[in-house]
Amino acid sequence: MSFGGASRGVGQESKSPSAPTGQLPQRGSIRKSGPGGHPARWGEGRSQGFRRTHLRGGGSGPHVGGSNDAKHISGERHVADQSKSLQLRSLVKSSGELELSLAAVPIPEPGPDEILVRIEASPINPSDLGLLLGPADLSTAKVSGEGEAAVVTAQVPPQAMRMLAARLDESMPVGNEGAGVVIKAGASPEAQALLGKTVAILGGAMYAQHRCVKAADALLLPPGATAADGASCFVNPLTALGMVETMRREGHKALVHTAAASNLGQMLNKICLKDGVGLVNIVRSDEQAKILKDIGARHVVDSTKPTFLEDLTAALVETGATLAFDAIGGGKLAGQILACMEAAANQTATTYSRYGSSTYKQVYIYGGLDTRPTELNRAFGMSWGLGGWLLTPFLMKIGPEAAAKLRQRVADELKTTFASHYTAEISLAEALKPEVMAAYNRRATGEKYLINPSK
Amino acid sequence: MSFGGASRGVGQESKSPSAPTGQLPQRGSIRKSGPGGHPARWGEGRSQGFRRTHLRGGGSGPHVGGSNDAKHISGERHVADQSKSLQLRSLVKSSGELELSLAAVPIPEPGPDEILVRIEASPINPSDLGLLLGPADLSTAKVSGEGEAAVVTAQVPPQAMRMLAARLDESMPVGNEGAGVVIKAGASPEAQALLGKTVAILGGAMYAQHRCVKAADALLLPPGATAADGASCFVNPLTALGMVETMRREGHKALVHTAAASNLGQMLNKICLKDGVGLVNIVRSDEQAKILKDIGARHVVDSTKPTFLEDLTAALVETGATLAFDAIGGGKLAGQILACMEAAANQTATTYSRYGSSTYKQVYIYGGLDTRPTELNRAFGMSWGLGGWLLTPFLMKIGPEAAAKLRQRVADELKTTFASHYTAEISLAEALKPEVMAAYNRRATGEKYLINPSK
Repeated sequence: MSFGGASRGVGQESKSPSAPTGQLPQRGSIRKSGPGGHPARWGEGRSQGFRRTHLRGGGSGPHVGGSNDAKHISGERHVADQSKSLQLRSLVKSSGELELSLAAVPIPEPGPDEILVRIEASPINPSDLGLLLGPADLSTAKVSGEGEAAVVTAQVPPQAMRMLAARLDESMPVGNEGAGVVIKAGASPEAQALLGKTVAILGGAMYAQHRCVKAADALLLPPGATAADGASCFVNPLTALGMVETMRREGHKALVHTAAASNLGQMLNKICLKDGVGLVNIVRSDEQAKILKDIGARHVVDSTKPTFLEDLTAALVETGATLAFDAIGGGKLAGQILACMEAAANQTATTYSRYGSSTYKQVYIYGGLDTRPTELNRAFGMSWGLGGWLLTPFLMKIGPEAAAKLRQRVADELKTTFASHYTAEISLAEALKPEVMAAYNRRATGEKYLINPSK
Repeated sequence: MSFGGASRGVGQESKSPSAPTGQLPQRGSIRKSGPGGHPARWGEGRSQGFRRTHLRGGGSGPHVGGSNDAKHISGERHVADQSKSLQLRSLVKSSGELELSLAAVPIPEPGPDEILVRIEASPINPSDLGLLLGPADLSTAKVSGEGEAAVVTAQVPPQAMRMLAARLDESMPVGNEGAGVVIKAGASPEAQALLGKTVAILGGAMYAQHRCVKAADALLLPPGATAADGASCFVNPLTALGMVETMRREGHKALVHTAAASNLGQMLNKICLKDGVGLVNIVRSDEQAKILKDIGARHVVDSTKPTFLEDLTAALVETGATLAFDAIGGGKLAGQILACMEAAANQTATTYSRYGSSTYKQVYIYGGLDTRPTELNRAFGMSWGLGGWLLTPFLMKIGPEAAAKLRQRVADELKTTFASHYTAEISLAEALKPEVMAAYNRRATGEKYLINPSK
């Protein structure tokens, strides 16, 4: 179990590389059989020496409908063509094999209110690794071809295949968020205003050289900010802000966070310190505790210490936290947090109830660093809730105005509260090298990789 | 694990026998040290040959404040006195012993808007057994004294004592609901109108010969209905109605229920059949399935069958149920229900998301027939919730008007939808006989005991 890079929380990936250009990734209505009835799939046509990729609706935004032509439906790889652009693809075949490759796809043409971004930075978040690598066993990884023509294959354990039924044999683009320079813009004033500017964008398919989005959905970076500065503008910052916002909206007064020394956890500490919100950080080592104490964290408890439950309860009494965000998911931790919240509530209780305190206690699981089952001993009364939490449904729930406020705060505090640090910057081709894959898949605390598709 | 008598869901028991005369048992503000600073406790004063019970605020309703006098603060047991009334008490001593006895308490005098009810019927629900017996080991039960003077003691396993900290050394009255005849009424027209009538009441301390409540909180039984007919008017009927009401308010269209052949489960089937609501019943044996099919249940699945998960998924597809009420609590069942709901949602899904379907799935645990930990494999995406559900907080949430509508429906359908059947009627003294205790503590499907304190 690793405690690094705990961020999760992005919504559904779309099967279309271009569908979710809205501020929020939308669950698309794209059917499994492609437009025009073309059943082409990755891997078909191999014997012809070229692969044909099946791009639903091409790369020109969500408004595709009947306007697709053959040029958009399929693209040829490894052809020197100025109108083609590389895009990282992940495919799980029903035969039980993961296949990663770089597809050459047409460069999309922005519509009137759209912009075309040359992606220069896109982070590898845990939420991306799930789609990119899935449950594949990287120790079985093999590479054929070289550089941009490399194809990596790895075996998916049979017991994990059932979970993947819905994505089988679909070549999927990857990368939730990124940043880059606007190199082409539609006719609308809003789009034109961004031409030449560096922007951050969200919506999948960012491990690619180009991405077309609505101008309204791009976040203009402050002057002097690089693409690398803005690459992680959405997932971690909005998730951290979303936790504090959820706390306020659901009537809690302080927070608990697990895997708390992660990039996300550090941001959350900065937000809570700035906003005066009590935060109990749960970590698993002295080093992790030190990372947080060094940035001013007030409550840090270590779940590997024998006094963990007492320490946690004391911190809960002190802060009054009744809401936790848990990146771990598996094992006893979520239940221990609820039980300690109940114990904290009962320290001030004046009456006995066999059903426990009337204090409502909530844990949201937003990650799955521990893939074992979640185990609850239910020693926390009847006033409790446990559930999943994802950024996208949360942003949908609070609505565009409230979401825009959170986005603006990220832009305003990009170099302070929401500053990200990266272990290394890699190219698309490097992202397919087994030794590099092993490194970014390690998810060690404080390590984060940045893909630069234009490198 | 027994599947009988799955009903839970009543709120907090009050430490005061008289505090919760409101329609809803209220969490009292009674401090651990009694009014007037009397620290008397059960068991003190034993050497004097008499026990002194410490009745917070006496028996005259919640409006006690500074008006208590010595007569109300303490009562003597085993004294033939027309103004005394027997009340069953449960005491867990910090020494690790459960003690059951009958306390002689003053008969309360109703205030202007109150009525005094001679209790003639009060059911032993699972929700009562928790308070009455707690986790005591009945195989260690010993009796001293006889009849109404009997005192039963039993050992509480040391590991269970931690959960009982808040009730230690507090002599607690028991019995959530009951029915009887109004033998005295305050001056208000509303109270006077009930004089001589048979009413059902809720609020704890019903295993007693008398109970004083607000007239407004009593449910007048329809003509011809006996106290036994009305004794179980609240807990099971309102819990079953509360499940359907929760389903409607939280936007679900059908229900799943576990331990579904219980008294409560049968009521729920009658409600759902009448209201046209889809209901998936989960049982553990052919006999339980037969009980439900005999009353017209459409979807019954048996969790002991090898095809359980497929059967459940098929029933979920057919009904569209995305909300479950679970009386079991422990083991894998709650997680299996969520996973089957997810599988049902994915049968019609058109896009892949690594975070699972966007269909929100909820399981409420309202009982704990299986005391093992709850185990969730989280194979159900990120759009899910698990939580505790209790009747009282639910009724508080929907407010008095909506609650009154549910109560009225119970009265209207008392002899049909909400008819209860009892295995045996026992007296207060019989309730303290070890062989009778073993019988009502068995919680077998279809078995339910009724206490008649006036017997």
